[in-house]
Amino acid sequence: MGVKKNIGVLPGDGIGPEVTREAVKVLNAIAEKHGHTFEYNYGDVGAIAIDKTGNPLPDETLAVCEASDAFLFGAIGHPKYDNDPSAKVRPEQGLLKLRKSLGLFANVRPVTAYDSLLHMSPLKTERVRGADFVVYRELTGGIYFGEKGRTEDGAYDNCTYSNYEIDRIAHLAFQAAQNRNKKLMLVDKANVLETSRLWRERVTAIAKEYPDVALEAMFVDNAAMQMIQNPKQFDVILTENMFGDIISDEASVIGGSLGLLPSASVGEKSAMFEPIHGSYPQGAGKNIANPLATILSAAMMLDHLGLIDEAIEVRQAVNASLRNGMVTEDLTKENPVGTDRVGDFIANHILEGE
Amino acid sequence: MGVKKNIGVLPGDGIGPEVTREAVKVLNAIAEKHGHTFEYNYGDVGAIAIDKTGNPLPDETLAVCEASDAFLFGAIGHPKYDNDPSAKVRPEQGLLKLRKSLGLFANVRPVTAYDSLLHMSPLKTERVRGADFVVYRELTGGIYFGEKGRTEDGAYDNCTYSNYEIDRIAHLAFQAAQNRNKKLMLVDKANVLETSRLWRERVTAIAKEYPDVALEAMFVDNAAMQMIQNPKQFDVILTENMFGDIISDEASVIGGSLGLLPSASVGEKSAMFEPIHGSYPQGAGKNIANPLATILSAAMMLDHLGLIDEAIEVRQAVNASLRNGMVTEDLTKENPVGTDRVGDFIANHILEGE
Ligand SMILES: [Mg+2]
Ligand SMILES: [Mg+2]
Repeated sequence: MGVKKNIGVLPGDGIGPEVTREAVKVLNAIAEKHGHTFEYNYGDVGAIAIDKTGNPLPDETLAVCEASDAFLFGAIGHPKYDNDPSAKVRPEQGLLKLRKSLGLFANVRPVTAYDSLLHMSPLKTERVRGADFVVYRELTGGIYFGEKGRTEDGAYDNCTYSNYEIDRIAHLAFQAAQNRNKKLMLVDKANVLETSRLWRERVTAIAKEYPDVALEAMFVDNAAMQMIQNPKQFDVILTENMFGDIISDEASVIGGSLGLLPSASVGEKSAMFEPIHGSYPQGAGKNIANPLATILSAAMMLDHLGLIDEAIEVRQAVNASLRNGMVTEDLTKENPVGTDRVGDFIANHILEGE
Repeated sequence: MGVKKNIGVLPGDGIGPEVTREAVKVLNAIAEKHGHTFEYNYGDVGAIAIDKTGNPLPDETLAVCEASDAFLFGAIGHPKYDNDPSAKVRPEQGLLKLRKSLGLFANVRPVTAYDSLLHMSPLKTERVRGADFVVYRELTGGIYFGEKGRTEDGAYDNCTYSNYEIDRIAHLAFQAAQNRNKKLMLVDKANVLETSRLWRERVTAIAKEYPDVALEAMFVDNAAMQMIQNPKQFDVILTENMFGDIISDEASVIGGSLGLLPSASVGEKSAMFEPIHGSYPQGAGKNIANPLATILSAAMMLDHLGLIDEAIEVRQAVNASLRNGMVTEDLTKENPVGTDRVGDFIANHILEGE
């Protein structure tokens, strides 16, 4: 009963190629065990694409993404462009163009506090232990994309949201809550902003279609406090673009390591899966990069492809690597292993079990 | 060489009267010790003002504030209004009207991690120990006050800032940095927002007038992370209204107790000093409210009135109350003392020393 899936792979810059290689290794283990066929198509993006073609997102790469059932994205960015203020073409334009071309409107960021990493969290252990939630951030609307400009003695940025933009991500968030602990927290500023009041109206109306999900709302300033004081209260967080930028970045540090955080960016037809960490050019080629965030991004991809049990197997294997100290030097000082050996351990764990 | 100052006192609702009473007690100790004359004029605000006059900010109260050199504000809010969605007049309208009538454009929120309270912080001790910074939040502009409304299929909120609005609070923040550790961190989102780019231009230009202050800038999403990971890096934070709302509320929890956090709201002619905690109606009249945030707000008032040494004396006396466990039940389980005895201890410490 194996399935056939077309998977795009955009390794990108810096440590991107190394971490995506390990994720593909893990996907191959899943395919082998379950009799699936994963066909990979590769594309350049970021600095390496500029070097080869002058374009951070060549047409062929976009075609790879459009033709795929889902695609993995490593990381982009290189100092030779990032540190040059006169550079006309920048690696990160590849990512922005990708989001825009494919209409990736929902950014999905799970946060899990792993027991073996609680000592690395900036929060006290008892505050963060057991935290496990996911942030659904709207990615293509709001003030970041509104009309902006200058006046004679000032400047302006306009924030707009349409019913449609709110509804489509709200459904995704409710569906995610149905598959989790059935709690949805809308984060807004409805006591002040009209767009927030619209979010609250639309989301409250849509909640009727998901009677098994408990909807609550929280003001964004309070959410910024609660994320520190009691992150365990959250299950699924749904919020607009700018609030999501702030809250999801705040949330990203409470687990203690950016090296474990996966993400997805979902559109009507395409879905991209990538670690939230950057390209870390200083670490490239040294076999020291932590591949777990990319491997966990591949697990999110498996979920997206409907391969739920397979995603669970990947997460269990990641947990085993953490428990057994089969981790890179960013997570341990005692006997760290290389990027490739983390991937080997996880692939092997999937194929052979504990 | 005593001075004469006219001080407004707006006790408000809930625990407001109790905590402002202790702050006045402490101000009286300062006046007695230094030969100053503080004349107090009282005004009603909030639920108590609605009960008496139907208006959360009666004209007489506004006149008290306008005639004062500075004024203390307790807290407002009462369940009988807050829990009634049909209430036409609400206590918090008193505060909003006060800010607007007096043009209080800068909200100033110091955050100090007190050694004796580090066990209450949600952050690990080594992360938060020594944190000591102040947030300057613009309070009357930006998206909270911009034009807002609905369209056929959506909603909008407009964010605007004028040069003037940015410049006047920037000067306050630079001056604060000169009196502190000479570091100013502008928090914005200049990679995306035009208003943020204007903030950066204006603040960078004004920095030339303060060559002893080191100016840096940080994106708001990064600031939300840094506040958890390394709050010690901050000295003075300057930011626009909404970012300030989120970042200052996030900052308020890292010290472990809202009961110690003072604030000021400063305008061209008036300045208001208030604890950041609320009216806590359940605790009213029980002599259990923590008066330290209001007493520390009175210390900020002394600074504002140019009585710098006196402000230091108040803060030293507050430190002594913390060191000696002369604190209310929110801060200790062992032999807490009442609201009045905390005020007595601090007033006495000022008059008699250790
Ligand atoms: Mg961000
Ligand atoms: Mg707030």
